Amino acid sequence: MPAPLRQPEPQRIQQDLQDLALLRDPDLAGWSRPTFTGVERESRRWVAARMRATSLDVHVDGIGNLIGVLPGQGAGGKAIVVGSHTDTVEGGGRFDGTVGVLGALEAVRLLEESGIKLRHDLRVVDYFNEEPNRFGLSCLGSRALASNLSPDHLATVDEDGATLAEALQSQGLDPADIPACAWSANEVLASLELHIEQGPILEQQGAGLGVVTAIAGIARLRAVFKGRRDHAGTRPMALRQDAGCAAAGTVLAIEAIGSSGADAVGTVGEIRFTPEATNVVSEEALLTAEFRSSDAGWFGLAREQLEQAVERESRRRGVHGSVLWLPPEPPTAMDPRLSELIGRSIAGLGHDFLRLYSGAGHDAVQLARLGPAGMIFLPSKDGRSHTPEEWTDLADIALGVHALAASIVQIDGWEP
Amino acid sequence: MPAPLRQPEPQRIQQDLQDLALLRDPDLAGWSRPTFTGVERESRRWVAARMRATSLDVHVDGIGNLIGVLPGQGAGGKAIVVGSHTDTVEGGGRFDGTVGVLGALEAVRLLEESGIKLRHDLRVVDYFNEEPNRFGLSCLGSRALASNLSPDHLATVDEDGATLAEALQSQGLDPADIPACAWSANEVLASLELHIEQGPILEQQGAGLGVVTAIAGIARLRAVFKGRRDHAGTRPMALRQDAGCAAAGTVLAIEAIGSSGADAVGTVGEIRFTPEATNVVSEEALLTAEFRSSDAGWFGLAREQLEQAVERESRRRGVHGSVLWLPPEPPTAMDPRLSELIGRSIAGLGHDFLRLYSGAGHDAVQLARLGPAGMIFLPSKDGRSHTPEEWTDLADIALGVHALAASIVQIDGWEP
Repeated sequence: MPAPLRQPEPQRIQQDLQDLALLRDPDLAGWSRPTFTGVERESRRWVAARMRATSLDVHVDGIGNLIGVLPGQGAGGKAIVVGSHTDTVEGGGRFDGTVGVLGALEAVRLLEESGIKLRHDLRVVDYFNEEPNRFGLSCLGSRALASNLSPDHLATVDEDGATLAEALQSQGLDPADIPACAWSANEVLASLELHIEQGPILEQQGAGLGVVTAIAGIARLRAVFKGRRDHAGTRPMALRQDAGCAAAGTVLAIEAIGSSGADAVGTVGEIRFTPEATNVVSEEALLTAEFRSSDAGWFGLAREQLEQAVERESRRRGVHGSVLWLPPEPPTAMDPRLSELIGRSIAGLGHDFLRLYSGAGHDAVQLARLGPAGMIFLPSKDGRSHTPEEWTDLADIALGVHALAASIVQIDGWEP
Repeated sequence: MPAPLRQPEPQRIQQDLQDLALLRDPDLAGWSRPTFTGVERESRRWVAARMRATSLDVHVDGIGNLIGVLPGQGAGGKAIVVGSHTDTVEGGGRFDGTVGVLGALEAVRLLEESGIKLRHDLRVVDYFNEEPNRFGLSCLGSRALASNLSPDHLATVDEDGATLAEALQSQGLDPADIPACAWSANEVLASLELHIEQGPILEQQGAGLGVVTAIAGIARLRAVFKGRRDHAGTRPMALRQDAGCAAAGTVLAIEAIGSSGADAVGTVGEIRFTPEATNVVSEEALLTAEFRSSDAGWFGLAREQLEQAVERESRRRGVHGSVLWLPPEPPTAMDPRLSELIGRSIAGLGHDFLRLYSGAGHDAVQLARLGPAGMIFLPSKDGRSHTPEEWTDLADIALGVHALAASIVQIDGWEP
């Protein structure tokens, strides 16, 4: 029997959250710490200091991941990995990512105060640049750990034509060091990430905690409709080839397809008519959309239905419709046995939880390439995230930290 | 019995069309003679010279209308008015407006060559600036004749903040002279305009000529939808307030409402989602649309159906939808007795014709404020207009000129 695990101390978590929240770009709304800015470098120095104050051995790897190690009592080379990220989107909030890093530090304190010595090394990681950067890329740090940051990624350019490699160099990072960051699969026993849900499900269901079953895959598309430009006054309805109406019909089809799976969504974020004049029948229309689902099997059907809808909405109007699919990102299943272990750990603390999938992407997608990966979700008030109104109650954060620490203890005794 | 009317000579019409087509802005596509440009002033000097060569007494009024008078043999103060415009949209064609001015000159030649002396004065007018100008206004010349060009119009500004009054001054026109341009209702016996259809109806029906029954009214609107910005991955479909989907549903409703009247159309020319990001549920959406119909009674129903659609598409998605209607332009009926006279004149020449309404606006809308107004339409190949591909066969133009001359003769003997 391991020693009993102490309760988290919410005021310590709150103090850390408040201190980190002070480090933000004062010229931007909300709590903004975008990667490649001075305030982000300052905040990560602050996190490193907090790691050291929590008795971790701290180092920064070649891509910029901040790694604090609590050495184990010796059980082979495998490590338990916990962590999240502390960078934010512009105009973001105080919880997305942050609770997973600062919560991991509180978990380490609980282990120590409870007199629990882990057999395995525990790595607490503040992953570099999880949020989409100005190169349109995200999860740079965890990608590098999973050997998934390629020369193609590094050659990506921003709006000014600068490459990602150059941006990394401006931060004192050498792209040549990236391959050496990679972890091998046989050094990770399991990885865990505590994160806010960023959606409304836990709050709606009255659940304090969530155990993530999968992270949704994404299929993005661009549909283009080519009709005929005509005078909006003189061209009868029956003789039109209105590209805009074909696009609008497709928007409604995407809404319907997205509603056809319990674990799926469909969204049109952008639509444009050309020539964009009130008195002209649209010659061309363009929309960009995405489907997300945790169910890999759903995408094939959705794809087929979307293409049928574009064809149907175009043909009935004499319009030519075409669909360009971007490279899909398949869903990532969390490890079922690890998820079960997390669930048992939470139940062992006397709490309820809900199993749910994540519609947003996370570093855990990359970590899952290295070994069993799991996530614990905390409720987001009103489901909001990436906005200053983002909020999670301190009591829920403390509950999540307790579940994280209990899960670490269970994993340490695990024989996968 | 009046003297028999001679046939038009197509090669004369063609020569005039070709000569005028040489006067175009070489830096713009198609045949471009926009108002307030040097090439437009040059072209109107050319038209004035052609009027003089056709034995008309020519003068330019205070707004810039070019007026050539064929004096009548004396029958009170009333005049028969024929004409159209020679300005064009950017990237326009060779027939819109032009056939009505040059065709009127050929009609004058036919009258003279046939030895027909009119009792009434015949005024051949090249109306100033019929096409929408950079101030968003059209029909400046005919508006001034109809006392419908107000100080509010003159104070309208272009994108650079210059007023219409200033633009007129730059052309040597004095806005103070505009009120004196106005014609009184008791000086117009009837007005006639020969014009291309700019739509596909005559061609589709195999009719060489059209007699216009009415010019469509226009109701323009802007609909705004306010929903909620949410993460497109984490917000389930059932909990969204997607402003974009409400707007798309309204586009389809406008298409359906526009198809609900034989003499009606509905068009959405512009739509925008905000924030216009693929992975964000739209917080706001905006569309601008218009309905047109020659049936004044149809607009009330269309308006009601549109507002119901905005309400329905918004409510089912928890979105707030609102509609702003711009000041409506009611339909303008052509004078029924004059239209009957035109039809009889065409039949008297042994030709068929189709009665149809005009979906596009014309100077005839303004002339109808001064007395009985009528229009004769010529077929447009493939219904195209405001594009370099605009085309009307010379044989059809000659037929229209013959009908115009025959109608002038009938009007001259008319006792309204």
